[in-house]
Amino acid sequence: MTLFTGLSAFPLTPIRDEEIDEAAYAGLIQRLVTAGVDSITALGSTGSYAYLTAEERARVARMTVEHAAGIPVFVGIGALRTREVMANVRSAEAAGAQGLLLAPVSYQQLSTDDVFELFRTVTSATDLPIVVYDNPGTTHFTFTLDLYARLAELEGVDSIKIPGQAMSPPDFSAHVERIRAATGNQVTIGISGDAFGAAGLNAGCDAWYTAVGGTLPTPMLAITRAAQNGEADRASELSAELQPLWDLFSEFSGSLRVTAAIAEHLGLVAPHSLPLPILGLTDAQKRKVAEVVATLNLD
Amino acid sequence: MTLFTGLSAFPLTPIRDEEIDEAAYAGLIQRLVTAGVDSITALGSTGSYAYLTAEERARVARMTVEHAAGIPVFVGIGALRTREVMANVRSAEAAGAQGLLLAPVSYQQLSTDDVFELFRTVTSATDLPIVVYDNPGTTHFTFTLDLYARLAELEGVDSIKIPGQAMSPPDFSAHVERIRAATGNQVTIGISGDAFGAAGLNAGCDAWYTAVGGTLPTPMLAITRAAQNGEADRASELSAELQPLWDLFSEFSGSLRVTAAIAEHLGLVAPHSLPLPILGLTDAQKRKVAEVVATLNLD
Repeated sequence: MTLFTGLSAFPLTPIRDEEIDEAAYAGLIQRLVTAGVDSITALGSTGSYAYLTAEERARVARMTVEHAAGIPVFVGIGALRTREVMANVRSAEAAGAQGLLLAPVSYQQLSTDDVFELFRTVTSATDLPIVVYDNPGTTHFTFTLDLYARLAELEGVDSIKIPGQAMSPPDFSAHVERIRAATGNQVTIGISGDAFGAAGLNAGCDAWYTAVGGTLPTPMLAITRAAQNGEADRASELSAELQPLWDLFSEFSGSLRVTAAIAEHLGLVAPHSLPLPILGLTDAQKRKVAEVVATLNLD
Repeated sequence: MTLFTGLSAFPLTPIRDEEIDEAAYAGLIQRLVTAGVDSITALGSTGSYAYLTAEERARVARMTVEHAAGIPVFVGIGALRTREVMANVRSAEAAGAQGLLLAPVSYQQLSTDDVFELFRTVTSATDLPIVVYDNPGTTHFTFTLDLYARLAELEGVDSIKIPGQAMSPPDFSAHVERIRAATGNQVTIGISGDAFGAAGLNAGCDAWYTAVGGTLPTPMLAITRAAQNGEADRASELSAELQPLWDLFSEFSGSLRVTAAIAEHLGLVAPHSLPLPILGLTDAQKRKVAEVVATLNLD
């Protein structure tokens, strides 16, 4: 279970002329290796997994392991259809992934039983450990504590990636404690929603599944290491210094478009790096992003 | 524009052992031909388009035209990525479709500009007329009147499929009138949400894009013809007689699972006809569906 602790960085999958920009992707992974992240999760929401073909996903999984220099790689396998999920499991296994990330992607609203059965099917078909990916903003599925508990009992479910939310420190600790009690300590708990990374770690989360940390690993590692060393105040301060970045996420509807704009601004990926129909930020919005990058000295 | 009027029936795409049940699908299309529907929309939400590969979608488009005996066929081309949408346009054209249905499917929340640009890209790349598919329950995108107006100005956008909602007859008429005013009479307006079909037609909608009518065309045609003949009360009465069916849709979270259960109960498709992870109704729920089918004499 220590596999799913610390900072797991979610790289973008940069697109160029509708194809994966493999050179840029390799560069993003090498950056994460240099920074010393604890693990890399390829093909998360930040990695645009839902927009790629099975073949593209297999290639990204292979490239990630190839460039990760031994750092554990987890691969997002979510898809609308169970049949596709299983194909992604096979390609992630073949690539040498050490873990899998599974979100209940939906078009038709899924029931709790649909989702449980999906996870049961996947866990019974692979030996790789699985992170339950709770991301209601994109999947439009709402997990309950009871479903967390049922999933944690499945052999192979080793971590839960919970959404971030604004809570006071005592409330956040109580929230994490409730999840831990419900899941009987059978899983690690990872926070997502980057603005809540420090608060989540300080509240007892074992991991930070960080979107922006896939592009800007160094400041996110500083927060993570402070929290891991018991320096909660220091972690909070470091996160507070990044408030202008978190504000961009709120203002521009989430982290993906902002993170892509940062990577484009820093020259890590080519312009228009998101898959259409997602146009990305407007020019005016990109200028605001560039200002924040300069002010905070992000690179 | 008369192409997009009257009853457009949305058949299921039945699944059997994870593959398309082609024999059952052909039977569903022949049923619609026999009933005399005005058009057939293949690969709508009811046709599980989002769950099928590009190749499967091409095959379904071809089969529909092949069995439609000259009845106009529209094909759903929506997909998460513009690249896939364009591939679906090409296969629908090759199949001989007379129209296209496009929903702004999302994983990352789409902006108004993302959606407008998607429709602009598609309309500029095909001569086939397009139905704008407004289905917030599955796409999680909310259209505004202003966006309707912008889309209606695109050459090739010929109809808008609006979601059903509970409104008084005068409010419903005013709602349709507002859309008509905003879109400058450049599109037909079609109601969806089957419980609201009669009310929508009575309120001035030109078309009924009906999910359950893809499986039970005869009662839905009776409602449509009554409304078209100006017999609003008769249309309302016929719809009211089906209230136990509409109640099942409310109770079992939408029309898809209920419609599939009806088709399975009537032997039109094999059991477990929906794509996993969608398990479909439970056995107890299926018994309730069978009771309603018997009570209402549906076949």
